[in-house]
Amino acid sequence: MKANPATKSKPKKSLNQLTAAQAARRIAKGEITSEALVVACLDHIDAREPQVRAWSYLNPAQALAEARARDRELKKSGPRGPLHGVPIGVKDVLDTGDMPTGMGSPIFDGWRPKADAACVALVRKAGAVILGKTVTCELAGIAPRETMHPLDPTRTPGGSSSGSGAGVADFHVPVAFGTQTGGSVLRPASFCGVVGYKPTYNMINRAGVKFASETLDTIGLIARTVEDAALVADVCIDRKPVKLGKLDTPPRIGLCRNVMWDEFASLVTKAALEGAATRAKAAGAKVTKFDLGPEFAELFSRRGEINDYERACGLAWEWAHHREKLSPQMTKTVEQGLALPHARYQDALRLAEHCRLRLETMMKNVDVLITPAANGEAPVGLHYAGNPAFQALWTMLHVPTISLPLAEGPNGLPVGVQLVAPRWQDRRLLETAQWMMGLKNE
Amino acid sequence: MKANPATKSKPKKSLNQLTAAQAARRIAKGEITSEALVVACLDHIDAREPQVRAWSYLNPAQALAEARARDRELKKSGPRGPLHGVPIGVKDVLDTGDMPTGMGSPIFDGWRPKADAACVALVRKAGAVILGKTVTCELAGIAPRETMHPLDPTRTPGGSSSGSGAGVADFHVPVAFGTQTGGSVLRPASFCGVVGYKPTYNMINRAGVKFASETLDTIGLIARTVEDAALVADVCIDRKPVKLGKLDTPPRIGLCRNVMWDEFASLVTKAALEGAATRAKAAGAKVTKFDLGPEFAELFSRRGEINDYERACGLAWEWAHHREKLSPQMTKTVEQGLALPHARYQDALRLAEHCRLRLETMMKNVDVLITPAANGEAPVGLHYAGNPAFQALWTMLHVPTISLPLAEGPNGLPVGVQLVAPRWQDRRLLETAQWMMGLKNE
Repeated sequence: MKANPATKSKPKKSLNQLTAAQAARRIAKGEITSEALVVACLDHIDAREPQVRAWSYLNPAQALAEARARDRELKKSGPRGPLHGVPIGVKDVLDTGDMPTGMGSPIFDGWRPKADAACVALVRKAGAVILGKTVTCELAGIAPRETMHPLDPTRTPGGSSSGSGAGVADFHVPVAFGTQTGGSVLRPASFCGVVGYKPTYNMINRAGVKFASETLDTIGLIARTVEDAALVADVCIDRKPVKLGKLDTPPRIGLCRNVMWDEFASLVTKAALEGAATRAKAAGAKVTKFDLGPEFAELFSRRGEINDYERACGLAWEWAHHREKLSPQMTKTVEQGLALPHARYQDALRLAEHCRLRLETMMKNVDVLITPAANGEAPVGLHYAGNPAFQALWTMLHVPTISLPLAEGPNGLPVGVQLVAPRWQDRRLLETAQWMMGLKNE
Repeated sequence: MKANPATKSKPKKSLNQLTAAQAARRIAKGEITSEALVVACLDHIDAREPQVRAWSYLNPAQALAEARARDRELKKSGPRGPLHGVPIGVKDVLDTGDMPTGMGSPIFDGWRPKADAACVALVRKAGAVILGKTVTCELAGIAPRETMHPLDPTRTPGGSSSGSGAGVADFHVPVAFGTQTGGSVLRPASFCGVVGYKPTYNMINRAGVKFASETLDTIGLIARTVEDAALVADVCIDRKPVKLGKLDTPPRIGLCRNVMWDEFASLVTKAALEGAATRAKAAGAKVTKFDLGPEFAELFSRRGEINDYERACGLAWEWAHHREKLSPQMTKTVEQGLALPHARYQDALRLAEHCRLRLETMMKNVDVLITPAANGEAPVGLHYAGNPAFQALWTMLHVPTISLPLAEGPNGLPVGVQLVAPRWQDRRLLETAQWMMGLKNE
């Protein structure tokens, strides 16, 4: 293919700064190669990784071989699918058949599964190049690993999808998988200033994910644009991607201060939320106050029961054979789970089920809720990946949520705002998110 | 320890005929060794396996080494737990870290996972000896493997937990794990004449199980007594086993003909159900007619949508890389799933959720339902593991169910009757089952 002089003379963004959708379009048109894109990502990682440490496994030769294979396929038979040649990061609790899957735990160091997780297989089927495995907190829990905030190495990037959040924010890769049991997709996204999307529970199939808590674990995506999150999610449900539509009318928004607002929300989070609501209102949205009420406060107070009980059951093998290799945080979680009566666990499940249905009724007159994402800017210190208080309730409710980088704190660091839609209204969530992002730039 | 002459002079059952509870008691008392028990099981398997083919992996030296280790531990520090020294079979879709886990599929032949499934780790923690892996239909689906009915090798033992059903019925092992997505625990139990127990969805943690359909897959047990099923289930939720109580008063039973009764139920199944109801009534139970109504018929008609959709997603890796190694049955299932619109799948999930809550309200005035288990005796032919019509609805409803060997067909083969309790009322189910089994022997 001949070089196109018109394209050549344009001022160029570094290729690693392209979004997944941009990259896929340019690769499909033959304007750039997957190899060139992957080289750009690897070069940037080479420069930045010592200060970010987003990757638990990265094999440049392997990634380049994949990219070259995609380039050859493209010439021979066209693109495999809508992600042809696009690099993607995979949180290291998702199985990869050709890369180690260490789960952020010494117990699984160097472990190589047989197969790819279903979602990994699906993005590969769509042409993606798995760039490598991103750092996860221990077993997708709360004990952090080595990743640092890309804008300030003294701060946490959030967790447990730490490497996915930091790597996408720092332009190592356009999009990466995360998983969320409490707040593990949205919190790193909010802290790092990118988009974190947790689909409706059960939307992305979990075959090949290491469970933290069966009832809560949800596979999600971290990206730099809403469009990219939507694109990869469509691929993950194995359906032809549909371009996000524009809202016909401004949305009806419930301003939901969540159950922890009074005790917990920092001034910067309050300001972020009020600011987003004000901009939405100015753009024609109908913004009303949305109160969750005492049942939801009760559910929130019992989030640990489901999480800890299921952790303790799910880690039975690790507990029996490798207890000494678990962190103090994980040990405490398992001990709490083991001490919890089965009847309490059942009761918490029932309450969660009740609240899921209740929320649907309550949301009849609003399209989405806006609510805090994570609390304030990323805190200083790498010993703690941040508090899931503002994310965990929504995870229990199985609703789709997204964190948008709509504000900044006093230190110039990002502060996210969360949108929430009723279960299975993922499309409405993403289109409203797109609309909100548009306001930011107006 | 000295031999006890009183014990010695009793007429002895072969050790492989002991139930798990009996064996555990005798091992704990020092009356028998785990080694002797495992030898008895292995000898019996040696004689019978050519005609039953219940095991996909059996390594006598490995099982005996485990048994001897349990015997040494017992002398040194007492029993590990309530299953000390008792052999257990593990359906070959559950991970075992020290045995291959072939999933009944050439794709996974000889595959060795890193860790034990959580439930396997828990029975080992309680002292059990994993005897080996039992044959499963391909990937816990409907394509049968080599297992034959122990009473008639021309007939299916049922599936997908074929080896667990046949092996327990044929006294290879007192109890074995199964999994149920449609009817894969209860159907083989009904056909083989043993107890098949599917707990409430989510009761036994699924870490380390190969998913068939996330929303439906439930780990269950096949045993020769209700007591054994209850004992192992208690161990699997990592709680101290509690002896099954006696019912204070005869139960209130809803006689539920299920949605397929008119089109489908054989005369022998109708007779089995009516017979069980008559005996229960004679013993003081209040038996009333229980109609499910059209919503449940609608749900039943849509069982394939959830199953096929989730199959297609969950097998994304196998479909991409090993399609030619899948059976025609599995290929068809995946193709159906791929063709199903995502909205239909969501809609089926919603209907299932609605019916789950509806059933709880409907069951306010009954303790359990009795309903057909599998249809009639095990059919002739090894090409088809039987129809899940009478089991699949209850699996979708997430309720605990049990198949009891309460009747016989015209060929002298077993015919099960199913009891169903509301979600999480597993204890009530098991105690009522115990009561029903008592009537059989009166």
